[in-house]
Amino acid sequence: MEKIEVVLTPALLPLYDVEGKVVVIIDILRATSSMCVAFQTGVEKILPVATPEECKLFKEFDFLCAAERNAVKVQGFDLGNSPFEFQNPLLKDRSIAFTTTNGTKAIKAAKEQGASTIVIGSFLNLTAVANWLIKHKQSVVLVCAGWKDKFNLEDTLFAGALVEAVSNHFKMDCDSALSAQLLYQTSSPQLENIVRKSSHAKRFQLLHHHEDDVHFCLQHNTMNLVPIMQGEYIVCPSQVAV
Amino acid sequence: MEKIEVVLTPALLPLYDVEGKVVVIIDILRATSSMCVAFQTGVEKILPVATPEECKLFKEFDFLCAAERNAVKVQGFDLGNSPFEFQNPLLKDRSIAFTTTNGTKAIKAAKEQGASTIVIGSFLNLTAVANWLIKHKQSVVLVCAGWKDKFNLEDTLFAGALVEAVSNHFKMDCDSALSAQLLYQTSSPQLENIVRKSSHAKRFQLLHHHEDDVHFCLQHNTMNLVPIMQGEYIVCPSQVAV
Repeated sequence: MEKIEVVLTPALLPLYDVEGKVVVIIDILRATSSMCVAFQTGVEKILPVATPEECKLFKEFDFLCAAERNAVKVQGFDLGNSPFEFQNPLLKDRSIAFTTTNGTKAIKAAKEQGASTIVIGSFLNLTAVANWLIKHKQSVVLVCAGWKDKFNLEDTLFAGALVEAVSNHFKMDCDSALSAQLLYQTSSPQLENIVRKSSHAKRFQLLHHHEDDVHFCLQHNTMNLVPIMQGEYIVCPSQVAV
Repeated sequence: MEKIEVVLTPALLPLYDVEGKVVVIIDILRATSSMCVAFQTGVEKILPVATPEECKLFKEFDFLCAAERNAVKVQGFDLGNSPFEFQNPLLKDRSIAFTTTNGTKAIKAAKEQGASTIVIGSFLNLTAVANWLIKHKQSVVLVCAGWKDKFNLEDTLFAGALVEAVSNHFKMDCDSALSAQLLYQTSSPQLENIVRKSSHAKRFQLLHHHEDDVHFCLQHNTMNLVPIMQGEYIVCPSQVAV
């Protein structure tokens, strides 16, 4: 039976062997949620890039440029990191260069450590990702993007939800996975209340915006799609509207 | 109000500011539990050292030498890392040089990062440590020793128990602390069953020994003492038998 492990922050990723494994990237508030929304809207591909400066370079290649730092859209960019921005029908068939504080960095780290496939996970496509993992029968490492290398609650809760969903199909010998699952089991009846106590939800409140982003990003299974990395791009070959 | 934070593994400690704060070191299975037992037995002082080689050098200064690596006593040493070994009455008034896989490394890291006071915490002295923290009114960082820089369950559960015990007296804006507290709240009615699922408890089972160490180290409040670091040594000035 293949293994499932959870990496609680990208700072711990070097301690794990991801070579040849499937890595699920998790940045619930908000990068991986927004990416799922983008593909549901009909975006063709997303290029994760490291910095706003690098992101801007793709403007001339007809990319839309999305940049967020410290939970705020970087000035002068087409898009920030709110899932609502990615619902705009004008995004259909477009390519997006995307840089965020945590999510796109986690993607790059997993790629550099030799992951065989990188999958984008969020509550919005939880069951679709779970079914994809079960079908592909490869060992899996769930990587929480966290906040500037620190642990965060909402990514861990999603990791727990995903562990719970696939637990009959994978061997689990990982305290992080066990803890994430316990946390999700105990929190799921009041998920939004608990996530609103998290440091990132509080950060949003202080910024006096993104009020609905937390609620939006905690919706389960609003879409049946699995974005994956192909070469440098995130694409969504199996895009099926629910 | 002073702050309380939880560092889930020593690998994440550089992300936290511990300068001038109280640090509680947590290595439930078994270093900090065994240290508490040692002081209850009447040990005078403990010198945490980095390696078995360094540990051995203190033999000629009339220290007893305790060394554990990978959950096993290092051959040729007086003591390993089982709490039962530290109940031996012959240890009374002795000094111990002590090196373990995770616990003594976490102590050294906290010291190097400028913690003002280092406190040794375990379920055995949970309430004593909680009362000490409340009385001292300084910001606190709880450092889980983990397993080779990875997250572990039992240290996090203790961090959660301690957060729970002092939560009315400290400000908490830390997802790790919030998660540890949730984990403890949900696990405490069946703590031993849950810890037996942890990777470290399984490691013990594979080694076919330490059968009772897990049970022993999960007992709450069997002693009313608070070991703290003074200079290079851990001592226990307020040693009071329950």
